[in-house]
Amino acid sequence: MKELISGTISSPLGFKTNALRCGIKKSEKDDLALIYSIVPAKAAAVFTTNKVKAAPLFVGKEHLRNNRAQAIIANSGNANCCTGRRGIQDVNKVSALVARKLDIPAADVLVSSTGVIGKFLPVEKIIAAVPELVNGLAFDKAQRAARAIMTTDTFEKQLAVEIKCKGKPVTIAAVAKGAGMICPDMATMLCFITTDACISVAALKKALRSAVDASFNRISVDGEMSTNDTAIILANGLAENAGITESGSDFKQFVAGLTHVCVRLAKMMVEDGEGASRVMQITVEGAGTQNEAKRAAGKIANSLLVKTMIAGGNPNWGRIPATLGAAGIALDEKKLEVFLQKKAVYRNGLPVAIKREVLIKLLEQKYVDIRARINKGSHSYTMWASDLTAEYVRINTEYN
Amino acid sequence: MKELISGTISSPLGFKTNALRCGIKKSEKDDLALIYSIVPAKAAAVFTTNKVKAAPLFVGKEHLRNNRAQAIIANSGNANCCTGRRGIQDVNKVSALVARKLDIPAADVLVSSTGVIGKFLPVEKIIAAVPELVNGLAFDKAQRAARAIMTTDTFEKQLAVEIKCKGKPVTIAAVAKGAGMICPDMATMLCFITTDACISVAALKKALRSAVDASFNRISVDGEMSTNDTAIILANGLAENAGITESGSDFKQFVAGLTHVCVRLAKMMVEDGEGASRVMQITVEGAGTQNEAKRAAGKIANSLLVKTMIAGGNPNWGRIPATLGAAGIALDEKKLEVFLQKKAVYRNGLPVAIKREVLIKLLEQKYVDIRARINKGSHSYTMWASDLTAEYVRINTEYN
Repeated sequence: MKELISGTISSPLGFKTNALRCGIKKSEKDDLALIYSIVPAKAAAVFTTNKVKAAPLFVGKEHLRNNRAQAIIANSGNANCCTGRRGIQDVNKVSALVARKLDIPAADVLVSSTGVIGKFLPVEKIIAAVPELVNGLAFDKAQRAARAIMTTDTFEKQLAVEIKCKGKPVTIAAVAKGAGMICPDMATMLCFITTDACISVAALKKALRSAVDASFNRISVDGEMSTNDTAIILANGLAENAGITESGSDFKQFVAGLTHVCVRLAKMMVEDGEGASRVMQITVEGAGTQNEAKRAAGKIANSLLVKTMIAGGNPNWGRIPATLGAAGIALDEKKLEVFLQKKAVYRNGLPVAIKREVLIKLLEQKYVDIRARINKGSHSYTMWASDLTAEYVRINTEYN
Repeated sequence: MKELISGTISSPLGFKTNALRCGIKKSEKDDLALIYSIVPAKAAAVFTTNKVKAAPLFVGKEHLRNNRAQAIIANSGNANCCTGRRGIQDVNKVSALVARKLDIPAADVLVSSTGVIGKFLPVEKIIAAVPELVNGLAFDKAQRAARAIMTTDTFEKQLAVEIKCKGKPVTIAAVAKGAGMICPDMATMLCFITTDACISVAALKKALRSAVDASFNRISVDGEMSTNDTAIILANGLAENAGITESGSDFKQFVAGLTHVCVRLAKMMVEDGEGASRVMQITVEGAGTQNEAKRAAGKIANSLLVKTMIAGGNPNWGRIPATLGAAGIALDEKKLEVFLQKKAVYRNGLPVAIKREVLIKLLEQKYVDIRARINKGSHSYTMWASDLTAEYVRINTEYN
């Protein structure tokens, strides 16, 4: 597997993009993007498990029944969520028009939205912009599309890798947005993945689920599950590799490539987490079950006291056992071990004698490794989370 | 029931207090307090459900086996948690010395600690201070004791009410501290309750549990359950009322008085929540079960996006259904209704047409009423939580 220099979602064969400003956002920034495969593509998706779901997700599930798609239109600035039947109608209007302009079936168009919840989509602005958006589709506009889906993101998140399937090069690329309302046990914010792989629908679905579980489901910025989380993969087959099925080395290659792309993007989301100054890599080891390890890691990832401690570069590590004790899992504090940057700080129910200055020095890094060993069983789980700064609060008190 | 003007934990008959600075805190503030009943008192307590517990809690449980206590010594600045056997030994040293100086059994002394986790208690500083602390006990030092147990609190929290039991006046008073590491499903941070009531042990335990469930278990500042949460009640019987048992109108009076005191203190904790600018009163109605209502209310109380929205006085109410959808309860978004300051903002799966300016005006208050109606059943739950400001982050990045 190799990562492509300046890889974009147009790196796989046959994917055009475009982006422009249709005026949903008050700022001068682009807020509408289109991704288009020149031939119909096999498609799979995972959506948020939030009980309150945005309108595009209902329509998207319908459109994906045939496991095929050819275009994704995404807007930022408005989530089209809590908007009832009118929200659904707005999605249908947009997908119908995009389909007509591209001369493809409406069911092959997927719509995605991100932004404020509880306001009707200014659909007329999107409708007015669609003709220009379609006419301007090109192979060299992926960077602009990546920026158009950003909300509170500060940099665009895009990546491509090349794998070999029986000698044939196959490219997998993805673009994602997400900086707030990011929490595990969901799909992600928005992630659009393009590949020219020739692959079966079953293999595509399995690969996507596996990659998402290893990446977007393991990150947290603020413990808030979005109503709009969506990850879509389009596989158009233009690489002309021998078809990938659910078994064999090509599938392994494909899953490895896809996972690599998704993990890289997931970490970028955390690095760009709202107000984030540092990233925690949290590992819980020796848990009785995988679920226990996950639960404990999630508790640390979303603990305000751990997050502010990391933001302050402050080795007040007692907050880690304290939050683990409240994670709702059986735990013997005398067996618990806690490590900061791989240095033991708590062991046998006692603080380890380390100079505070040494710990402060260890925490002066962008990535901080937090490890808790429960010493009950053999299960472990790793995730990534951002710290909590005053800047997060500023962003979210002012956002509307 | 009447609230006493300038009521303190010395308002009930027979309770002396003292406080001083023994040097655990770096600042010039008092950090050691003593509460003493001039006669042995019936005692009950509830402690944190955190799996990681501070040393004083283990000893406290032992000492309370006889349901009797006469003194509580409490320090701030160090939690004596994650300190293993040495932590327990330190508690025993302190209680033995206090007992000797007061000429009472060691088992009648309860020790409480609050502050940083994972550092050994500077027990020699406490030992050195105990003689002066005991010698200075008086009926007019409760204010100073209330301040000595504060950590990040900005004001002392103390209150007394008088009830009548078959004509006899009975006084119930309490002092509490707590501003951070405050979350429901626990006892509280520290709360010491004094009463001169004559009451059976069974009635005392039942009353305490009921009052704590209605108060300290319903508040959240930061979703962090403490390792040291403790609520202790001492009932010395000096009011000479006919003994209160588990039934009858005197018990009802007592529970009402105790609950009033605890709810008032719990709300004070939230008002004084670290960095708090506003308090949310959150009610979830129409839930299928009490537990569902509690879970949904807790999700709102601890949602960073709801907390920052309230801090900003920002009517971005879409964050409320979004966080409810992720609360892990079955929910039909079309049936959900959301109210801000009693005004409906979301109903029938649609935003209610209200001017943004009207909502902003409504949010310009210290207490903000958030109400969510699930419309599934008849269960409801109310709790109180603080908002999230940059000041919370400042306090907790710098605390060590």
